[in-house]
Amino acid sequence: MRATLMYRAGDVRVEKVPDARLINPTDALITITAACICGSDLWPYKELEAVETGRPMGHEAIGRVEAIGSEVHRIKVGDLVVMPFAYSDGTCEFCHEGLNTSCLHGGFFGVGGEAGGAQAEAVRVPQADGTLFKLSTAADSELMPSLLTLSDVMGTGHHAAVSARVRRGNRVAVIGDGAVGLCGVIAARRLGAEQIVLLGHYPDRIALAKDFGATDIVSERGEEGVAHVRTLTRGVGVHSVLECVGSSQAIEMAFGIVRSGGAIGRVGVPHYEAIPASQPAFYHNITVSGGPAPVRAYIEKLLPDILEGKIRPGLVFDRTTSLDEVPEGYRAMNDRKSIKVLVKP
Amino acid sequence: MRATLMYRAGDVRVEKVPDARLINPTDALITITAACICGSDLWPYKELEAVETGRPMGHEAIGRVEAIGSEVHRIKVGDLVVMPFAYSDGTCEFCHEGLNTSCLHGGFFGVGGEAGGAQAEAVRVPQADGTLFKLSTAADSELMPSLLTLSDVMGTGHHAAVSARVRRGNRVAVIGDGAVGLCGVIAARRLGAEQIVLLGHYPDRIALAKDFGATDIVSERGEEGVAHVRTLTRGVGVHSVLECVGSSQAIEMAFGIVRSGGAIGRVGVPHYEAIPASQPAFYHNITVSGGPAPVRAYIEKLLPDILEGKIRPGLVFDRTTSLDEVPEGYRAMNDRKSIKVLVKP
Repeated sequence: MRATLMYRAGDVRVEKVPDARLINPTDALITITAACICGSDLWPYKELEAVETGRPMGHEAIGRVEAIGSEVHRIKVGDLVVMPFAYSDGTCEFCHEGLNTSCLHGGFFGVGGEAGGAQAEAVRVPQADGTLFKLSTAADSELMPSLLTLSDVMGTGHHAAVSARVRRGNRVAVIGDGAVGLCGVIAARRLGAEQIVLLGHYPDRIALAKDFGATDIVSERGEEGVAHVRTLTRGVGVHSVLECVGSSQAIEMAFGIVRSGGAIGRVGVPHYEAIPASQPAFYHNITVSGGPAPVRAYIEKLLPDILEGKIRPGLVFDRTTSLDEVPEGYRAMNDRKSIKVLVKP
Repeated sequence: MRATLMYRAGDVRVEKVPDARLINPTDALITITAACICGSDLWPYKELEAVETGRPMGHEAIGRVEAIGSEVHRIKVGDLVVMPFAYSDGTCEFCHEGLNTSCLHGGFFGVGGEAGGAQAEAVRVPQADGTLFKLSTAADSELMPSLLTLSDVMGTGHHAAVSARVRRGNRVAVIGDGAVGLCGVIAARRLGAEQIVLLGHYPDRIALAKDFGATDIVSERGEEGVAHVRTLTRGVGVHSVLECVGSSQAIEMAFGIVRSGGAIGRVGVPHYEAIPASQPAFYHNITVSGGPAPVRAYIEKLLPDILEGKIRPGLVFDRTTSLDEVPEGYRAMNDRKSIKVLVKP
């Protein structure tokens, strides 16, 4: 089969690899009907050191179940399923609590670990019963892009909002105008935020953010950006910050604009070393939360709103490529020529 | 009047100073009937650089109102009142939300700022209407030591528990066997924690912790202590950590024993630079919260349990001194010969 491998920063190739196949009795094999390139894939695209055998890429997908292991009972061959970016058994204490990304038998797709990548024709899904979510929608539905975001970015934006304790009537800031930040705007609106300030730079993304519910846009960086957000929030800052980037500038800005007693929900993979211990975090009673989103647990919550057309996170896809065009997709996203790329193998 | 001044680390003196008096129309003047020495006073006792005029010390008190400014309406001359360690107007948006320590017109006692110290015969209380809490208990009640803890340590222990999201049935660890840690045990028990592991070293404090509801004691430090807590919690750690020390060892231990998806409530003034951004905080979805406790807001919640004898935080006082003996009280607490010293001016 063909699959996407990254050999080092900037070097993405689509190559013929051994067919994905069942290994464990709890596995399923799915053929990918839709995958995508994630903002988090751009970190290795910038930084990855040489990997001799290549790293299989991709962790978001919708697919059709082709085969199941002997211990898979809930998922059937032929099911159309959402594959979240983490696999999880669905039965351990963490899964029961809705923190599937800390599953005692879980792991992640497309990070060079035990599981393969989803920017491919097919992928082996460990812990299939716990991991996969069966859709009842037709494969050619126009809802498919939005449903695909349930595998990561919509759930991750929602996790940022939940971690940042967004409540009805709150003032909220979303740092980052990538797909996750844009989904964070949707999530904040959905949870009843009154004011949603998007911190972003690109006109196409800003337009989409406004469509999704952003009430204010701040495009300045650093101290100027902080001052602008404070002006918009009567000087005291926002109750909730959704930190959807992961850079040191982003987390510094988060602390600059969060209100005393407020919360920062981090979902951008941290590319900074530390969080300052005292000022303002401690003295202003700021809560810092977040991490890899348990998107599997959020699918049940978010799906109805997609099916009813209340939220349309699929609009973050502004480019569709074939599998062979994936390297070009990486380039487009890295150059900010595309918000998010949908891949049709 | 006489008041306690600290001139540098280890140098505490009780001296004659100008009488405290009303300055602003929102002030009250109270004569102190009971004050105390706080674990947080031991930080300057270890570290304070020379202060030529001395720093007025003390931020916890019960007192009798002697005089009020022209704009004080709720508090009357003759009232017996609890003075929380921070003053606050009670009317700003932060006070309304119960975060009095972020009051827009607030500040702290006994830190060398605008307000004086409470280890004294009297103190000026800014924002008296918002700050002071009137007691209906007789001044000679045996409940007085417990009521005095509402000025700081009981409210601070409660804040650690609230920040660490202690819920019914949770497994909880309390780092620190000082008065705040011990009150943290009371708070965790009060909120329904099922297991309460105290990390502490001193037999008298451990005995009190057990009396307050600690179910397990861990006295090892560092990696050994972490391993012991993990053994006690089926390998996964605790839902909630109450970090009541503020040292780098304490926060490291907190991250070592907190469960994925769990929370750390920090109330020990941080004497460490930073919190690690990625591991385990981010990847394990750990929430870090806490700061200076809004004890004023907690008095209403905690008072009934003290009046009904359900909680007895006053037991943390194991020594009573006169004002003149305060320097000896500092020595006793610093040498761990006393848990907490009550001062009767």
